[in-house]
Amino acid sequence: MQKRTTFVEVTLITPTAAMSPAVHGNRAKCLQRLIRLEMPVPTTVALSFDAVSKIAAGDLPDMAQVMAPFGETPLLSVRPSSLSPDWGGPAAVLNIGMNDARLDTMKDTVGEAAATALYARFIHAYAIEVARLDPEVFELPAKPTADDLRLALETYEFEADEPFPQDPTEQLEAVLRSMARAWDGTTARLLREAKGAPADAGLGLVVQEMALGVGRDGECGSGVIQYVDSTTGKPQVTGRYLGQSQGRDALGDVEGAIYLTKDPRGRSLEDLSPVIFAELLAYRDLCRSRLREEMEVSFTIENGKLNILDAVKVQRSSRAEVQIAVALAEDGVIPREEAVLRVKPAALSEMLHRQVDPDAKRDVLVTGIAASPGAATGQIVLSANEAQASAARGEPCILVRRETTPEDIRGMNAAHAVLTVRGGVTSHAAVIGRGLGLPCVVGASDLSVNTRRGEIETPDGRILSEGDVITVDGTRGQVLAGAPKMLEAALDDAFQTLLSWADEFRDIGVRANADTPADAQTAKNFAAEGIGLCRTEHMFFEGDRLGMMREMIFAETEEDRRAVLERLLPLQRADMKELFSIMQGKPVCMRLFDMPLHEFLPFDKAGQRDLAASLALPLPDIVERVQALSEYNPMLGMRGIRQGIALPEIYEMQARAIFEATVDAAKDGINIVPEIMIPLISAMKEVELIKARIDAVAASVQAEQRAEFDFKLGVMVETPRAALRAEDIAEYSEFLSFGTNDLTQMTYGLSRDDAGRFMSTYVQQAVYEEDPFHTLDIEGVGELLSIGAERGRKGRKDVVLSICGEHGGSRTAIAFCRTEGFDYVSCSPFRVPLARLSAAQLALNERLM
Amino acid sequence: MQKRTTFVEVTLITPTAAMSPAVHGNRAKCLQRLIRLEMPVPTTVALSFDAVSKIAAGDLPDMAQVMAPFGETPLLSVRPSSLSPDWGGPAAVLNIGMNDARLDTMKDTVGEAAATALYARFIHAYAIEVARLDPEVFELPAKPTADDLRLALETYEFEADEPFPQDPTEQLEAVLRSMARAWDGTTARLLREAKGAPADAGLGLVVQEMALGVGRDGECGSGVIQYVDSTTGKPQVTGRYLGQSQGRDALGDVEGAIYLTKDPRGRSLEDLSPVIFAELLAYRDLCRSRLREEMEVSFTIENGKLNILDAVKVQRSSRAEVQIAVALAEDGVIPREEAVLRVKPAALSEMLHRQVDPDAKRDVLVTGIAASPGAATGQIVLSANEAQASAARGEPCILVRRETTPEDIRGMNAAHAVLTVRGGVTSHAAVIGRGLGLPCVVGASDLSVNTRRGEIETPDGRILSEGDVITVDGTRGQVLAGAPKMLEAALDDAFQTLLSWADEFRDIGVRANADTPADAQTAKNFAAEGIGLCRTEHMFFEGDRLGMMREMIFAETEEDRRAVLERLLPLQRADMKELFSIMQGKPVCMRLFDMPLHEFLPFDKAGQRDLAASLALPLPDIVERVQALSEYNPMLGMRGIRQGIALPEIYEMQARAIFEATVDAAKDGINIVPEIMIPLISAMKEVELIKARIDAVAASVQAEQRAEFDFKLGVMVETPRAALRAEDIAEYSEFLSFGTNDLTQMTYGLSRDDAGRFMSTYVQQAVYEEDPFHTLDIEGVGELLSIGAERGRKGRKDVVLSICGEHGGSRTAIAFCRTEGFDYVSCSPFRVPLARLSAAQLALNERLM
Repeated sequence: MQKRTTFVEVTLITPTAAMSPAVHGNRAKCLQRLIRLEMPVPTTVALSFDAVSKIAAGDLPDMAQVMAPFGETPLLSVRPSSLSPDWGGPAAVLNIGMNDARLDTMKDTVGEAAATALYARFIHAYAIEVARLDPEVFELPAKPTADDLRLALETYEFEADEPFPQDPTEQLEAVLRSMARAWDGTTARLLREAKGAPADAGLGLVVQEMALGVGRDGECGSGVIQYVDSTTGKPQVTGRYLGQSQGRDALGDVEGAIYLTKDPRGRSLEDLSPVIFAELLAYRDLCRSRLREEMEVSFTIENGKLNILDAVKVQRSSRAEVQIAVALAEDGVIPREEAVLRVKPAALSEMLHRQVDPDAKRDVLVTGIAASPGAATGQIVLSANEAQASAARGEPCILVRRETTPEDIRGMNAAHAVLTVRGGVTSHAAVIGRGLGLPCVVGASDLSVNTRRGEIETPDGRILSEGDVITVDGTRGQVLAGAPKMLEAALDDAFQTLLSWADEFRDIGVRANADTPADAQTAKNFAAEGIGLCRTEHMFFEGDRLGMMREMIFAETEEDRRAVLERLLPLQRADMKELFSIMQGKPVCMRLFDMPLHEFLPFDKAGQRDLAASLALPLPDIVERVQALSEYNPMLGMRGIRQGIALPEIYEMQARAIFEATVDAAKDGINIVPEIMIPLISAMKEVELIKARIDAVAASVQAEQRAEFDFKLGVMVETPRAALRAEDIAEYSEFLSFGTNDLTQMTYGLSRDDAGRFMSTYVQQAVYEEDPFHTLDIEGVGELLSIGAERGRKGRKDVVLSICGEHGGSRTAIAFCRTEGFDYVSCSPFRVPLARLSAAQLALNERLM
Repeated sequence: MQKRTTFVEVTLITPTAAMSPAVHGNRAKCLQRLIRLEMPVPTTVALSFDAVSKIAAGDLPDMAQVMAPFGETPLLSVRPSSLSPDWGGPAAVLNIGMNDARLDTMKDTVGEAAATALYARFIHAYAIEVARLDPEVFELPAKPTADDLRLALETYEFEADEPFPQDPTEQLEAVLRSMARAWDGTTARLLREAKGAPADAGLGLVVQEMALGVGRDGECGSGVIQYVDSTTGKPQVTGRYLGQSQGRDALGDVEGAIYLTKDPRGRSLEDLSPVIFAELLAYRDLCRSRLREEMEVSFTIENGKLNILDAVKVQRSSRAEVQIAVALAEDGVIPREEAVLRVKPAALSEMLHRQVDPDAKRDVLVTGIAASPGAATGQIVLSANEAQASAARGEPCILVRRETTPEDIRGMNAAHAVLTVRGGVTSHAAVIGRGLGLPCVVGASDLSVNTRRGEIETPDGRILSEGDVITVDGTRGQVLAGAPKMLEAALDDAFQTLLSWADEFRDIGVRANADTPADAQTAKNFAAEGIGLCRTEHMFFEGDRLGMMREMIFAETEEDRRAVLERLLPLQRADMKELFSIMQGKPVCMRLFDMPLHEFLPFDKAGQRDLAASLALPLPDIVERVQALSEYNPMLGMRGIRQGIALPEIYEMQARAIFEATVDAAKDGINIVPEIMIPLISAMKEVELIKARIDAVAASVQAEQRAEFDFKLGVMVETPRAALRAEDIAEYSEFLSFGTNDLTQMTYGLSRDDAGRFMSTYVQQAVYEEDPFHTLDIEGVGELLSIGAERGRKGRKDVVLSICGEHGGSRTAIAFCRTEGFDYVSCSPFRVPLARLSAAQLALNERLM
């Protein structure tokens, strides 16, 4: 079986061996560090990424060389060692080397029961993890007897059609090969890629001599210790210890497992062996100061002697991640820069999880298992593709599935929450949901899902359709109708400290996209330096305004339109004033009305009848107008500046509202220089025309109110042509804000709303490296940004440059904007903290290079 | 009244006066030439464009200076003199200087009746053209009497509220002012702009002493002579003469007007005055050799003496234009280059007019006046905007209006024919229709048009809706149902000669866009050098194929899809073979399938029910599929390469059809290197993937058929990103063909289908200088073309570059492509002759510079 065509390297871990995380993985490197700190680590051998990939391809190392350091008849463990512990990997396999002969000798050393159990459990693990036999036929009691062992051996032979392998070398070869190959499985790959692993991420393996944890000569057992709380990141010794055990046995819900520190609830390791406890405690500062991390240490006590098997970064919540980084920096263990660099921006996003307000009225549709915390509201979608399409449209959605499969991962990534009918806490949906930090309810088995009709039915017979809004409360395991009030995540001191450090290092501005006062408040809470994009058209859907907009659409003359706009003016002015008040003088950039008028009209017959009644017009008039306004390609249609030129009275009203609000705000002591942004520009003349009108409105407001104010007029660059003509356009524009959403659509000739249908295929086949709506396309869209920036500066030396849109908060986009010397990025309020952190990390990385 | 703030220059036309068409207009310059040729031209004074624009603004020249050359009490005429005689201008005003006193003296010289008539007609012209009184109250008999004169004077005084001006200088001032201002009228402006006049085209005026044409001392009268036939351009003396007349009186349907050459039907000028006739004939060769043109000469015989008042280029049909230019060149009067430069490409387009086949069955919907020749088929549209939208979609349309107004001109320009309910041969629709070379039927008064319902009703009660197809036969004045068989225009020898000369000078290739064998045949007839774009998807709508396409859309598996495609293969192969046969080895570039699948499905319930029946599927399945395939922005959706990657079996079938047809054609002795073009590319990887598949199909066809063939694979560059990434893309592409239609849509973020709604406003307000779908946008889209070409060449030194699409045949686009070193342009078959001529003219212009 064994062929050896290539040399497969094997490295004994010593203080001086050449070893790096990028070659051997994080675990191997960490073990070397423990050895250097003179901790009692059993003999360990490392296989590099390269070695493991050769093993997966069919080669094997010189097994004699692998076994040599361990002496005769050792028992061995194999553990995965990838570059990042977050990327998972195959399960550890322990007690390799157990066989009938060894069983006999061990009966003497550790006793028959322990030896039998150990052998039986090895067979069990080997059968499932290595021989890939059906787990259901391999049930094993917690304390296997000699009968259980015999049954296990027989079952193995029956299922595998060969006797259980007795040769330790053969066992180890099989384990190595199996673990090496498991790394290439689809689920493993998708899971680690969701954690940010690159497509070519490697797996290393460490082979370690077992410290048994069972025996008869003094205290034997195993445990795990860490020195901070995983949830809060604050100092606290936690962990468990179980006598006569191995590996991570102590962590299960198992009888006899005890706490480590003195505990009123029962015995502790401190009681049992104060010396060993003290020894473990001593490693706390050693790890912290020398490994510069909070570690979780796995240990085994073998016949009264402490062995340190492994230490990994403490598994931690996002909150703890921030707390630990900040504490290490505050204690001088690491510099602030490193604290800022250590926290993944995504961790902040998890901290920002919203929860259903405890006081909110809860209309429970169905109950299931609370599989991943946090709560989210969105429209029901019944397929991963629809979830992606919905995300592409910027509409929050809840992915509802009977159960999820690896193929759904991209859809889950796009959804705001996940709800499944089947599955438990370890189901695919639950595991992935937690991995992605998505609120998730699983096993809502009373729910029925009819994909074909696009409907779900609740236990009490309510039918909801795709597009209906529900809320998943992953903290309580409930699914609620509609959008109950939410509580924003509470952000602790460490979070604020870290971000204040980030702001010290950051060298590009971060603003928020905020359309409503609530958004603006969130933006302010997250210390956004202003509003980079306020989409004013969203203000026209609230309350009476929709009715007025419809009235305006049906107005026959400019005069009638102006009459309706007169009534909208005070409402719009109040909107603006409120935004200015919240932002307290920080800049607010308002994009003028940019929406096809047909979006204000009802498309269903009933709605049209209602509208006919309320406007006292015949139904055919309504239908005709709806048809007349409908468009083949609304994305490329009558919106933005095109409406601004056709119906200039709308922009004039908006400009007036902005200027009057500016004057009002000044009376309240809030001095603001409002920024007015014109959407969908494709030619300089468009800007020139609108600028003349807006200047005129400004002059007239100043005259009427006898007040002085400044304002800035700029352009949203979202057509390729606007980027190409930026030099002309900048003549009339004080700022250029690149709308990368639309610019991506037009550069690719690709509608976000329709791309969902094939984007996943495209990315899977690597036709596009990334979904360009998710990750800024540097090569195409980016070039237009560079061209636009360069020409914009040619036209106006001090033109202010920024990007807004979904990409704004992403690391790729921020990196690009820094390189191009942009002034700021603008992103959704909840991404502001991430953007601040990413920007700081980019600046620091540059400094380190 | 008279103010003089600026000096207004006046020039007496002498052989040596400084005078140029660009300053004084064509007529003034031409008069100078006649004077140089020593023709008997009455004294004439010229006012330059500059002078006339000052007059329009309120200034006046020194009237004493104007009058000085004419001696005492002259009678004067004023005529327009713009740069091009095609641009129209205000009507000439004759007999300025007539007044009560002059009437008395002229009674002695020309007789009372003639003097009275002359005065009355001057008052009439002055009232209408200068004082702008209501023409209806100023009716005048052909031979006005003293009573008519008195009535005219009284009417004038009553309507104008002042006596008829007696001072000749005052009369002349008023005439000059009125004519100067008429040039700025909207209709005048739109009319000349439709003829290609720039927005700032100037008007000059010539003031000439009247040669009276009435009198008692020998032969008196006026006439017009030309030496070629206006319709054919072939040599033939034509014209009319009328004794005792002035101006162009002889040309009306007037009693007493006679032919010039001896005529069996009656007296002729040759009979009447052989000396003068001979004198006129002598001018023929003088004009031709010295003015290098065929001229129409206006003459007046005053008391037996010949006066030459004016000579203008003979009004001519397009056919005559070509004939004259070719004859002048063949006779050595002008070089071939100049003949090629003289013919406007648009003239060729008029020659290409189709006619209804005399043998076709005619289902006459309504009859009207045959106002402009030629016939065209298209969908009914009821507004100018719809006509533009329809043209933008590339759909031929017929503009049906109650009557047309200047606001409709752009819509008429976009329509393939015009039909009006009201109006006669000189109605707006008729004049403009002829001007634009559009088939036109006017005065179809039995037709009723209901714009609101979008319907028209014929006299026999048939109701047709917008979108229904009709045919306007402007040659016979009939409107026909549907699309009867047409006869292509017959192209004469001169046409072919001119184009063969053009091909000698041309330095860029011209291909045709041709989807069908009929298109290909037309392309070949027009000597296209190949097919630059064959849109293969159009082949899937014919006959059974639509059914098969639908079957494919509903196929559940790739296997089922392949089964349908197997049946489509022989049909597609036959299509290809036919194209190859027609093109006889000239290159054929076939664009692979590029159409959203939903366009193959019926959107109405009835059609869906039929489809359900024919596919034996439940209706809900059909409805669901239609909905699933519908898109928000089909322009930016699932089509082109995106389908090619999702459903590769379609492209594979097409490639196979192309290759098998190539092998078949070779057996018939037709050797072709087929070109395969991939649509909607936005990334290099797309090309790489499809190329691999197509190469594989080629290899397998070669193996199966034991045949060798070459083919070329290239890309349609129609997304901005494809232009930006052209260097990568060219690695896998032997040619890049720029699809400027889609590229314009994406560069502007502007859907052709929706732009009609505001494009006319945009162009009127000069927001866009031109409709970018009509005239290639050099500044924006053009830059992407330059970038794409430059990078394409970087990626592959000998990459073949071209453009296809609506712009392909336009002068602007050809000029651009020449500058950028493109290999060819491809345009619709009927534009091929224009493109050949434009390309030649551009090359010649460059040589002359």
